[in-house]
Amino acid sequence: MGSFFAGGRRLTVEGKPVRTIDVNAKVGRKIVVDPNGDYNVEHAYVQYFLPQNEKGRFPLLFWHGGGMTGKAWETTPDGRPGWRDYFLHLGWSVYICDAVERGRSGWAPEDELFSQEAPTLFPMHYAFERFRLGASYASRETYPHSRFPMNSYEEYVSQFVPRWTGTSEAIVAAYGALLEKTGPAVVIGHSQGATLSFSVMRTMPERFKALVAVEPYGTASDEDIDLIKDIPILWVLGDFMDLHPAWKESRAKVIACHEKICAAGGNSTLLDLPAEGVLGNSHMLMMETNNFDIAERIQSWFKNNNLC
Amino acid sequence: MGSFFAGGRRLTVEGKPVRTIDVNAKVGRKIVVDPNGDYNVEHAYVQYFLPQNEKGRFPLLFWHGGGMTGKAWETTPDGRPGWRDYFLHLGWSVYICDAVERGRSGWAPEDELFSQEAPTLFPMHYAFERFRLGASYASRETYPHSRFPMNSYEEYVSQFVPRWTGTSEAIVAAYGALLEKTGPAVVIGHSQGATLSFSVMRTMPERFKALVAVEPYGTASDEDIDLIKDIPILWVLGDFMDLHPAWKESRAKVIACHEKICAAGGNSTLLDLPAEGVLGNSHMLMMETNNFDIAERIQSWFKNNNLC
Repeated sequence: MGSFFAGGRRLTVEGKPVRTIDVNAKVGRKIVVDPNGDYNVEHAYVQYFLPQNEKGRFPLLFWHGGGMTGKAWETTPDGRPGWRDYFLHLGWSVYICDAVERGRSGWAPEDELFSQEAPTLFPMHYAFERFRLGASYASRETYPHSRFPMNSYEEYVSQFVPRWTGTSEAIVAAYGALLEKTGPAVVIGHSQGATLSFSVMRTMPERFKALVAVEPYGTASDEDIDLIKDIPILWVLGDFMDLHPAWKESRAKVIACHEKICAAGGNSTLLDLPAEGVLGNSHMLMMETNNFDIAERIQSWFKNNNLC
Repeated sequence: MGSFFAGGRRLTVEGKPVRTIDVNAKVGRKIVVDPNGDYNVEHAYVQYFLPQNEKGRFPLLFWHGGGMTGKAWETTPDGRPGWRDYFLHLGWSVYICDAVERGRSGWAPEDELFSQEAPTLFPMHYAFERFRLGASYASRETYPHSRFPMNSYEEYVSQFVPRWTGTSEAIVAAYGALLEKTGPAVVIGHSQGATLSFSVMRTMPERFKALVAVEPYGTASDEDIDLIKDIPILWVLGDFMDLHPAWKESRAKVIACHEKICAAGGNSTLLDLPAEGVLGNSHMLMMETNNFDIAERIQSWFKNNNLC
């Protein structure tokens, strides 16, 4: 196992005033900081785990959702193994990414990308309602058949980190740089990570051996269908999407894109969990009680596509 | 292996205006964010790795320095294994922490701790000169016998993340909460992580089975010496400390504290690398070319103290 950074660019800052800051006032230490100079910015932190007996034919890359970090794929809020461990044990080389700005990728206060707008952190009610755990956080009442480990709600919300809205292009660039390093790969993306996969894919379709798009809110554009139609794509959709206008729209987009790829003779598969009788999954399905059941369905699809 | 969060507190925000933000303008998606509500803030992300044949008698916790994350203990900038892997392979249960605000611990824009002051990211020249790689970044010339992998300087600086100056107490609280979870442990702290160890230690000395303090800038206060003197402490000091007034002062503090503990009949050991003929180490010695040689000296000290 190991870790490295992918992508990023050089930022040069000039003409800004020198600041004196008190570091750790209790020990009475001051540091003079001159913000002028060069920085590396907009890179992505990547942590990898390689199995002893590799069975996956390509590296397996995990791209998390908005406001989250690579933590999303690790231990679940209630302490069970996540998808990282599931696929690693099956013999996949696993690469867990923190998107630009998130987690160990860091961000740069002097970079315009981050200084032009205040970032947002999801409050607890948002993380409950927006991600379809239940209709109202006030009651804490989850939807019927909910799979979410509500007893570990505090642990769940602790994993959210501030997000900016103007960083999509930087994330796409860093993930592209990562694919240049790893070579052709299989990507599992969630939400924002799945949506942005399509932006990376159109610039380097040959680097995608397959994409598992878990509840993206955006898909491939119509003009890209021919370019990407031969890349195996598995769409994974949870429950309760029709209860929220935004998710209803995302669901419709996914199904439309899936049908267009199929109509073009491409390789697209829809894993619509409630339609298969798997009820109760929210947007956070990779950390819910049936997370291994869903992972098993993904692994079957990998096998069917000769990826392992 | 797995991960979890330690510590933190509840923050309630009320009476702030609702904002509409454009998420990913390219896909034309807007989100209405109501910042009012509850948040979990000031927790620490912890990633652990447990060996098959445990040899360490206690968990081994790694607390990184200021402006850094747990990445500091992983793969070195030039791609070699770091101290995490070294001690894990020797049979230690290893816990890598991201301090409050850093990396996957995240931070909270609505939390006064973070909103009252602009954070700082170290520019490249600072990370070179302040941490004693060489006298001047302009020339890129390192000090004599330097052990730093300069060909990987870009990878090194990518690991720095923004830091605030008022978060020491929150970091100490979260690390204390971690020790409540893990039970008595051995801590390896670097720089800020080593300095703050003494603040945690005075509140729960029974939780420290040993401390390896790598170049702290602050030590135990005189009134705490009696309380902590029986805890085995190993101080690790690199080269070139006398060339910088701030490091000269830190070095003097370390030696003074070491001597006070010894005078009180306590268990303190000084690993002064240049005095032992190990030349060329900067403040970032855990990622330099002789990082395993230094780790071996630490492991010998663990053995001498019956910790493994």
